[in-house]
Amino acid sequence: MKTSILINCPDQAGIISIVTGFIHSKGGNIIYLDQHVDKAANIFFMRLESDFDEKSFNITTFSSEFEKKLALPYKMKWALKKDTEKLKMAVFVSKYNHCLYDLLSRFNSGELNVDIPFILSNHKDLEYIANQFNIPFYHIPITKDTKEEAEQKQLKLLKENNVDFIVLARYMQIVSSTVIEEFPNKIINIHHSFLPAFAGAKPYHAAFARGVKIIGATSHYVTEELDAGPIIEQDVTAVTHSHSISDFITKGRDLEKIVLSRAVKLHIASKTMVYNNKTVIFS
Amino acid sequence: MKTSILINCPDQAGIISIVTGFIHSKGGNIIYLDQHVDKAANIFFMRLESDFDEKSFNITTFSSEFEKKLALPYKMKWALKKDTEKLKMAVFVSKYNHCLYDLLSRFNSGELNVDIPFILSNHKDLEYIANQFNIPFYHIPITKDTKEEAEQKQLKLLKENNVDFIVLARYMQIVSSTVIEEFPNKIINIHHSFLPAFAGAKPYHAAFARGVKIIGATSHYVTEELDAGPIIEQDVTAVTHSHSISDFITKGRDLEKIVLSRAVKLHIASKTMVYNNKTVIFS
Amino acid sequence: MKTSILINCPDQAGIISIVTGFIHSKGGNIIYLDQHVDKAANIFFMRLESDFDEKSFNITTFSSEFEKKLALPYKMKWALKKDTEKLKMAVFVSKYNHCLYDLLSRFNSGELNVDIPFILSNHKDLEYIANQFNIPFYHIPITKDTKEEAEQKQLKLLKENNVDFIVLARYMQIVSSTVIEEFPNKIINIHHSFLPAFAGAKPYHAAFARGVKIIGATSHYVTEELDAGPIIEQDVTAVTHSHSISDFITKGRDLEKIVLSRAVKLHIASKTMVYNNKTVIFS
Amino acid sequence: MKTSILINCPDQAGIISIVTGFIHSKGGNIIYLDQHVDKAANIFFMRLESDFDEKSFNITTFSSEFEKKLALPYKMKWALKKDTEKLKMAVFVSKYNHCLYDLLSRFNSGELNVDIPFILSNHKDLEYIANQFNIPFYHIPITKDTKEEAEQKQLKLLKENNVDFIVLARYMQIVSSTVIEEFPNKIINIHHSFLPAFAGAKPYHAAFARGVKIIGATSHYVTEELDAGPIIEQDVTAVTHSHSISDFITKGRDLEKIVLSRAVKLHIASKTMVYNNKTVIFS
Repeated sequence: MKTSILINCPDQAGIISIVTGFIHSKGGNIIYLDQHVDKAANIFFMRLESDFDEKSFNITTFSSEFEKKLALPYKMKWALKKDTEKLKMAVFVSKYNHCLYDLLSRFNSGELNVDIPFILSNHKDLEYIANQFNIPFYHIPITKDTKEEAEQKQLKLLKENNVDFIVLARYMQIVSSTVIEEFPNKIINIHHSFLPAFAGAKPYHAAFARGVKIIGATSHYVTEELDAGPIIEQDVTAVTHSHSISDFITKGRDLEKIVLSRAVKLHIASKTMVYNNKTVIFS
Repeated sequence: MKTSILINCPDQAGIISIVTGFIHSKGGNIIYLDQHVDKAANIFFMRLESDFDEKSFNITTFSSEFEKKLALPYKMKWALKKDTEKLKMAVFVSKYNHCLYDLLSRFNSGELNVDIPFILSNHKDLEYIANQFNIPFYHIPITKDTKEEAEQKQLKLLKENNVDFIVLARYMQIVSSTVIEEFPNKIINIHHSFLPAFAGAKPYHAAFARGVKIIGATSHYVTEELDAGPIIEQDVTAVTHSHSISDFITKGRDLEKIVLSRAVKLHIASKTMVYNNKTVIFS
Repeated sequence: MKTSILINCPDQAGIISIVTGFIHSKGGNIIYLDQHVDKAANIFFMRLESDFDEKSFNITTFSSEFEKKLALPYKMKWALKKDTEKLKMAVFVSKYNHCLYDLLSRFNSGELNVDIPFILSNHKDLEYIANQFNIPFYHIPITKDTKEEAEQKQLKLLKENNVDFIVLARYMQIVSSTVIEEFPNKIINIHHSFLPAFAGAKPYHAAFARGVKIIGATSHYVTEELDAGPIIEQDVTAVTHSHSISDFITKGRDLEKIVLSRAVKLHIASKTMVYNNKTVIFS
Repeated sequence: MKTSILINCPDQAGIISIVTGFIHSKGGNIIYLDQHVDKAANIFFMRLESDFDEKSFNITTFSSEFEKKLALPYKMKWALKKDTEKLKMAVFVSKYNHCLYDLLSRFNSGELNVDIPFILSNHKDLEYIANQFNIPFYHIPITKDTKEEAEQKQLKLLKENNVDFIVLARYMQIVSSTVIEEFPNKIINIHHSFLPAFAGAKPYHAAFARGVKIIGATSHYVTEELDAGPIIEQDVTAVTHSHSISDFITKGRDLEKIVLSRAVKLHIASKTMVYNNKTVIFS
């Protein structure tokens, strides 16, 4: 049985040897190990892929022993995920279709190992795509006055469907703390600029006005502060004076969909860890 | 005789035909033409490389006729440069040597068609490089109290040497309006971030703190507002959580020197035009 | 009425002035001009976007006069396209769906200004996507023995539908001269390597075996020699020793679809010219 | 005392745990660990940075025990390097100065932790740079008839100076097996193309003729087969139809010097391992 284990804890001598020794003692074969130390913050991070014998391995026993012998004494935060486990991913959209199409075509190709219980939107524009791909579509309109009520409906749907994480595929609404608190580091947004440049609305217009020679896209976990959450993935493309704002938008779409899908794939594969509003990406 | 002509004026029908017809009528063969229209601002830009017969071409006559028949009626700003003309480039540095070494090794290879009358610094640290390359070095220290006086000394040197433009090759001082006004769009700076992200001091530290996945460098013309002048050239490189601030600095050095030298080469080749705090780059 | 004009001819003095003067004399306003001279081959290339008065402009008169006054005396090859004209694009696929999904989602978003009369495949695997997007799908199986017959069927379909150009969206069959000759520089292929490296079958396997640190994708016009036609667009992405062949394939898919769509968009916009097995791309 | 250890051996269960346990048992604190398994070839690779107590650590004892308890039973190839150890790097050049200038300016800045006992060339053109940087310069001309004799002279110099590795900084001579066999995987070359495309002479001319849209540079270890050794580092830059061969060469110079210096820095830092004509790069 293949598993991914993510660990972080205060850095201390011998920690790699201790963890790998423990896995080994439980019959695990370590296929892959990557680690990182943030020296300034004195935090140790590790990702392990291990193969355990299907017959003799008991995940409950393993977990309680890991907790007692490692997590507690070394003050570890840790998580174990079986490779066969499928996360449930909800997709929130508004009117732009490129990120949604990209995610769903990857999903259809088997590139994203998830279930998609539903697509949710504050508009009906993209319902036809949900239909094309036979995925339930919920339309929950949002106005200033109905925002709180709408988010309660969202939460209800998310819980009923046991959603593990949310992808904002160019969802043009600010997600409030009501939802964020229920999904900490589990809401992935795509912002159409090279953050921290051009946070907020209309970044391509701002980039054009500033006369930059490169535009970008940034995928990040959503936090209370707008466009300021931990960055998962970024990419850029060159532009020149000859490109109009509309060219920026067209070129940007290709960046957005690729960057978002990379971030989603990293999240699905348990390759991201968050601390101090930053990420460690084990890629 | 080969020439570069840069033109900008309010956009109007037939302007390309009118200019090319004029060049043609003066015996010029147009080797290269690039043009751009900023539709929002309604400005037309053009760059022409033309070859004139050495014997029959009189630059004074040509210029006064261009002025009368084209520039005045069409409200053009324009400039003509002979390809044989060598600009005089002053280099300002402080303590970092990578950009200076890069510029001087290009200069020595014949890659930069300029004269370098002197290198100027507020520190003595890089005098040895000026000596290595046999270029006069002036040390003008700057303190808060002596800044104005120091800049007057700089201006004196710049004028005595008929300097055409200044390259700030990691010059760690803010250039004041005293100097900027004498060299409008003729001072090229390299900033060690992907502007407008991380303007000001210590951009690599700020980028590290924000957890970006890409760092950059930006070369721009210096204006009164710090790090906010028209951008000439930008480039970026990927970083990960595993890179320390010191890694950012090392990786950044390679970006800085390449981006700065590209900008300098564009300026030397008369391929840059400035308007509305942006650039048109004919590359 | 907006038009694009593509021109190439032997290079000669004054040619830009002559063409722009002609356009101007016919009441055209040149919105955009780009030109290029291949000095070694002594060929002049130009692309013009011009705006003519809808009422007074007669395309037949214009064309015959252009032919007589410019094309004949200057030995020009030229083509004029109205911006409102929609090309008919056929898409050939086999079993991989990423390029097809990408093209069709762009098509649905209005990003590709074409008609798609049909999708054709030697397999039935992707029929469901044609159905998702309501586009006719033809299944023409190909074996060694039936290849000629199959290509005749293809040609019949192409002609019946007045197809202007063909996109091979990971079509895993070699197109023979029978089809190529009918569509010279009108068949766009995507090859999953950085050509000329790794032409032919299984380029990701070959790239992995060679231990390259960067992989690529290349879109080119199809010619008789396999993977050797004029290159329209290329892009690359970094890989490391830690990536398996399967990782190359996954990463490569993103390159392939982006590179192919860029090439298709350049072709649709009349921004490509072919000569000496190379392209001039006016972007 | 900080050390880097490089290991490769047949892959086997528990190997990470065994090695880290051994280091731990010798009082070493593992600061950094990276590993890789080539599953097809069944080879395990590991790089460790460990900190040992200066007083109690005996490198001879450690090495002989590592040999007996780990290397022998697990069939390991391994190497240990103290971080304070300085390698001796010889630089071979011909007539192009950009890579040499780049290496020496980095060396002067303390970016390359090596000694440079000498620069060697088959031409006198770059002797002035050696003088600028006060590094001994040897001129050993090479003709078809004198090649063997010249390489004997080279070997003598290399041995007398205890050279650890050689950098071919645009050295325009084929290094024969006489020298390669003495420096296996210790001669770093920069080739001015994106290998395996355009191996051999005049790659920029070949790239221009093929009409590629991207050019590259490749740094690799030198093996008997020309331009076919294990690739350490590659990078690319975009070109268009408007770039001449001479533009390719100019743009390429910037790639070459950056790619070569990255490869040299990886080699110096013991971050490269070679197997099956490929590299594992622990970066």
